[in-house]
Amino acid sequence: MIKVGIVGGTGYTGVELLRLLALHPNAEVCVVTSRAEKGLRVDAVYPNLRGFNELCFVDPTIDNLSACELVFFATPNSTAMHMAPDLLGLGIKVIDLSADFRLADVAVWEQWYNDKHACPELLQQAVYGLPETHRAEIAKANLVANPGCYPTATQLGFLPLVKANVIDLNMLIADAKSGVSGAGRAASVGALLSETGESFKAYAVPGHRHLPEIKQALNEVAESEVSLTFTPHLVPMIRGIHATLYARLTDQQVDLQKLFEDFYRDEPFVDVLPEGAHPDTADVRGTNRCQIAVHQAQRGDVVSVLSVIDNLVKGASGQAVHNMNIMFGLDETCGLSQVGLYP
Amino acid sequence: MIKVGIVGGTGYTGVELLRLLALHPNAEVCVVTSRAEKGLRVDAVYPNLRGFNELCFVDPTIDNLSACELVFFATPNSTAMHMAPDLLGLGIKVIDLSADFRLADVAVWEQWYNDKHACPELLQQAVYGLPETHRAEIAKANLVANPGCYPTATQLGFLPLVKANVIDLNMLIADAKSGVSGAGRAASVGALLSETGESFKAYAVPGHRHLPEIKQALNEVAESEVSLTFTPHLVPMIRGIHATLYARLTDQQVDLQKLFEDFYRDEPFVDVLPEGAHPDTADVRGTNRCQIAVHQAQRGDVVSVLSVIDNLVKGASGQAVHNMNIMFGLDETCGLSQVGLYP
Amino acid sequence: MIKVGIVGGTGYTGVELLRLLALHPNAEVCVVTSRAEKGLRVDAVYPNLRGFNELCFVDPTIDNLSACELVFFATPNSTAMHMAPDLLGLGIKVIDLSADFRLADVAVWEQWYNDKHACPELLQQAVYGLPETHRAEIAKANLVANPGCYPTATQLGFLPLVKANVIDLNMLIADAKSGVSGAGRAASVGALLSETGESFKAYAVPGHRHLPEIKQALNEVAESEVSLTFTPHLVPMIRGIHATLYARLTDQQVDLQKLFEDFYRDEPFVDVLPEGAHPDTADVRGTNRCQIAVHQAQRGDVVSVLSVIDNLVKGASGQAVHNMNIMFGLDETCGLSQVGLYP
Amino acid sequence: MIKVGIVGGTGYTGVELLRLLALHPNAEVCVVTSRAEKGLRVDAVYPNLRGFNELCFVDPTIDNLSACELVFFATPNSTAMHMAPDLLGLGIKVIDLSADFRLADVAVWEQWYNDKHACPELLQQAVYGLPETHRAEIAKANLVANPGCYPTATQLGFLPLVKANVIDLNMLIADAKSGVSGAGRAASVGALLSETGESFKAYAVPGHRHLPEIKQALNEVAESEVSLTFTPHLVPMIRGIHATLYARLTDQQVDLQKLFEDFYRDEPFVDVLPEGAHPDTADVRGTNRCQIAVHQAQRGDVVSVLSVIDNLVKGASGQAVHNMNIMFGLDETCGLSQVGLYP
Repeated sequence: MIKVGIVGGTGYTGVELLRLLALHPNAEVCVVTSRAEKGLRVDAVYPNLRGFNELCFVDPTIDNLSACELVFFATPNSTAMHMAPDLLGLGIKVIDLSADFRLADVAVWEQWYNDKHACPELLQQAVYGLPETHRAEIAKANLVANPGCYPTATQLGFLPLVKANVIDLNMLIADAKSGVSGAGRAASVGALLSETGESFKAYAVPGHRHLPEIKQALNEVAESEVSLTFTPHLVPMIRGIHATLYARLTDQQVDLQKLFEDFYRDEPFVDVLPEGAHPDTADVRGTNRCQIAVHQAQRGDVVSVLSVIDNLVKGASGQAVHNMNIMFGLDETCGLSQVGLYP
Repeated sequence: MIKVGIVGGTGYTGVELLRLLALHPNAEVCVVTSRAEKGLRVDAVYPNLRGFNELCFVDPTIDNLSACELVFFATPNSTAMHMAPDLLGLGIKVIDLSADFRLADVAVWEQWYNDKHACPELLQQAVYGLPETHRAEIAKANLVANPGCYPTATQLGFLPLVKANVIDLNMLIADAKSGVSGAGRAASVGALLSETGESFKAYAVPGHRHLPEIKQALNEVAESEVSLTFTPHLVPMIRGIHATLYARLTDQQVDLQKLFEDFYRDEPFVDVLPEGAHPDTADVRGTNRCQIAVHQAQRGDVVSVLSVIDNLVKGASGQAVHNMNIMFGLDETCGLSQVGLYP
Repeated sequence: MIKVGIVGGTGYTGVELLRLLALHPNAEVCVVTSRAEKGLRVDAVYPNLRGFNELCFVDPTIDNLSACELVFFATPNSTAMHMAPDLLGLGIKVIDLSADFRLADVAVWEQWYNDKHACPELLQQAVYGLPETHRAEIAKANLVANPGCYPTATQLGFLPLVKANVIDLNMLIADAKSGVSGAGRAASVGALLSETGESFKAYAVPGHRHLPEIKQALNEVAESEVSLTFTPHLVPMIRGIHATLYARLTDQQVDLQKLFEDFYRDEPFVDVLPEGAHPDTADVRGTNRCQIAVHQAQRGDVVSVLSVIDNLVKGASGQAVHNMNIMFGLDETCGLSQVGLYP
Repeated sequence: MIKVGIVGGTGYTGVELLRLLALHPNAEVCVVTSRAEKGLRVDAVYPNLRGFNELCFVDPTIDNLSACELVFFATPNSTAMHMAPDLLGLGIKVIDLSADFRLADVAVWEQWYNDKHACPELLQQAVYGLPETHRAEIAKANLVANPGCYPTATQLGFLPLVKANVIDLNMLIADAKSGVSGAGRAASVGALLSETGESFKAYAVPGHRHLPEIKQALNEVAESEVSLTFTPHLVPMIRGIHATLYARLTDQQVDLQKLFEDFYRDEPFVDVLPEGAHPDTADVRGTNRCQIAVHQAQRGDVVSVLSVIDNLVKGASGQAVHNMNIMFGLDETCGLSQVGLYP
């Protein structure tokens, strides 16, 4: 059993890690930290975990985490970077679900996250934890930067097209929609049911932090600079991301369906739907699965890709467990075989 | 008082007409038809109308409607075209909220609506009822084709850009999202709360009936053929449409905010929000208002327009009442001064 | 035009007052206060009010309010009691939407609201603003304590039975359900969509502050002490309260339907539905109406009353406007003739 | 591996059986029937099952089911009773999720279900499948009548009180609230999101079919006739039932918390929450768990019990799998160890 610690156990990605790991056959959560809830039983705060977890929240100190083999950071940005160096120094592997290690360029990071990076030297060592593109490096990594939710859905949709070099990279559109849990479990007026229920709106249109992350990843695959417009929207539901992606085809003869199916044939968590399908976030609820459909509407020169994930699973905690499985040489699907909770 | 008849009073656009007209100072609903609910009191079916309406549903016959000065069709497609000729022949004005008279080209109509048109000769006489573009013709019209909900939100967002000739018409993207009431009040599995709640998905990506309507309208303004990708999505809420529109700017120096403000300066129902705003469907709930914001994210060459309406009001029944006001020479805002029901 | 001030204009009852008064023919909002949003335009914070209100938020000082004829307090509890004496001293009428003046017994108030009352001497002068029971006093009042949302729905349901003396007062059950807007517009984890969406739960079962208010009102009508169990629940929707009330009939021969219809025959805002009906919160959304049905299931000795209101209108701001109409001798329905926003 | 057939695989309880059995280590679904979807792959209709199920829907004939060891009926009422005799005759065990075998008295069944019972002789042989009260009989049963959703939540809440004889059986109140999935996956206006979203209402107050089922069960335990008022309500969410139960205590000295904890100490799927708790349907979403809290508000003589389940799991398909586990001598929790999907 892998001894696991979770820093920041009271947010949604923290409790989702606890849900997934509760039934994982090869990992055991030994430490869950929370400054605010210190001393309280985890299952007193999260009654869904009653019977699965007898731990109490403790302070997030290196000492409390020192017996772990792996520590997940399910914290706000700018937390993991202050503790990761010490943990790595103790030989403890780290998977950071926040954004601290996602951007390779420290200047870009500091611009978008409005902070001075605490350990820029680790940025090169950190591996971007999208298994579909970085599996081999993840297997050898000590520090994994778990991708953002929007970047996961968006990259998985664009990747086959970019890799096959069949689209114009000068005008990529990612129109993305997320459930409200993406805003986290912090008290905020903007995420109240009274504000977000029966409401639909875009936000951060001038620039969202996930934009540089997506561009970095697509640039890497494209081996050139892509031009991307990324528009996030808030959907009146709890879980789920739907990315609707648009690009102009430079090759209209390509068999898009075959391209996608071939690209993801061996991926356990990317499911290319049959031609003509419209993926629904509800079908991947609670699972680590990305379902994708590709369309060429009206036989025109625009390709549309529809990509759905559960933002808390494939977009966060499930992908983190997937990364753990790879890092520790386990079967990749270990603990991740949930069926989508429909309806 | 204008004597009004409503054919198809049991659907959502019908009951919304009844809500709006209940307090209209210059119009009186005299006849409401419904085959299924014939004989029942309107307010027995719709308790929100108790105290406002004492009518009973009657059969949709020409005879029952013959004393009206104006008849609204709030019916499924392919109904109005069978009754409109007779009503017009009696000197009764007609506003059709369905799609029967929206497309000028009968062949296009028959292809998309899968039916033979019953009175193609009326297609040229019918006026497309978007007041912002057809005000003068509406004032003189006897037959108005009330626009679709998606086309309303989409046109109002694209119009200033197309008219000013500042965007590339070869790749327009309209990523549109609608509340479930757009699917109507018919029993269907796909619109159950259990199917659409906590769910987000695109639909009709290969081609939606509102596509030719939008293209016809934009072509007319552009005086050339536009290339448009239109993707509708279903949002887990009742009312509201959010259209997110993308185009490449051919003139990056244009002052977009000023362009939009000038374009809509005198329009009572189009409200251009201040720079940087993100319109929310909740702010226009229950009103005939379209709120719009225009963005040029990251100072790039892509313009994004965010356009929100209440699909049942500005996207249907409110716009129909607006058209009625114009046709009968009333103040345009008569009966349409609701404040958005927030929260 | 009555010159109106609103203290606490940024909460949901404040913005709802602004919505209702925007179209009120005899009242004009001259001052809206908010410490937090001071200096901002009201319609910048609430875009649904664009075009209806040009005011900016100001500090809640007596000076700023001194030109008003009436001041509404749409504030948290324990605010109005600190300002009301000065305003009343200036001859300004006060309607308090909070709980500061609802309980006649200062000791009970201090126990439930955990504070020392700032002006207990006003408690006797304050009139409880439920028009259906206190119309005459309201007409002469300078200080009106606007009822709570749950107490409004509950009292209106129990009143005819208590007054007619046909139920056993020793075991009244009020099982009440409220939309989340009842929790207000304050940042809180408990009211996030992610917490309350797809969730149903009771809260405050050991004792909710509306319990003593309801009991005081029912005791007064009963002229004896009633025994009431009151259980509030949170419904995953924004607006609406549904109170399901149970009591044992002491007189099984009473014609319940007639009893209720007679009791409310002349009330403009209480609508007794036909026998067998099930009122729906959606039918009174946005209106000042209470819809009620009374049932005697299985011909047994238990009477069930179903009572629905919009918690922000009849349960708060609409009732406050109703009280204003009465206090200033206007037609009671002035500005309150909205049709329920269904669907 | 137990060979399992599912009759009626396209409703919500059918697809929920498929979800639960997909990961059950000792059961294999071999046949799934559906007249309407005959020939289609199961995972084409339910994309959440892609990768878990390769079956196609077949006609519901005895022949198609003859190789099964167990058949679940996830059908509307009045279906199972026509096929159960033949299946039982072939030595195939039957678990009926519909109501055909729940009522022991055929006259009562025929009155409430408006049909002639097809095999009244089986009613005595059928075992009521609430494991908490009928475990031993279930273990030996060939025909199990799986309880209704409301009856499950209601009985589990009342049972300890009735058994301990500490409440007045003359006025039991069950105020129950259900998510919309309880209405099934049939096309109906009443279950549209546009009708049930942002709406709360009671239904079937004059008498709901689950009333005789609950009374039969409580009478059996009480060994006398209970008087019960049962009021179901519709909650704008998909899954979850919350039963709020009220009774007058005849013994006010009883330690209610201890009573409930002792009663359910050995039950794997009933979880008595700590004193003062308010169970939330969200905490049991997707699980076979019932969470219960018991309150004696204001130290009065009324006991309130709050009981939550997922209507599709503990209220239907999960309980059916639990029954299967008991009937086949498996560990009771086999395949039923999901953690509640919060948030």
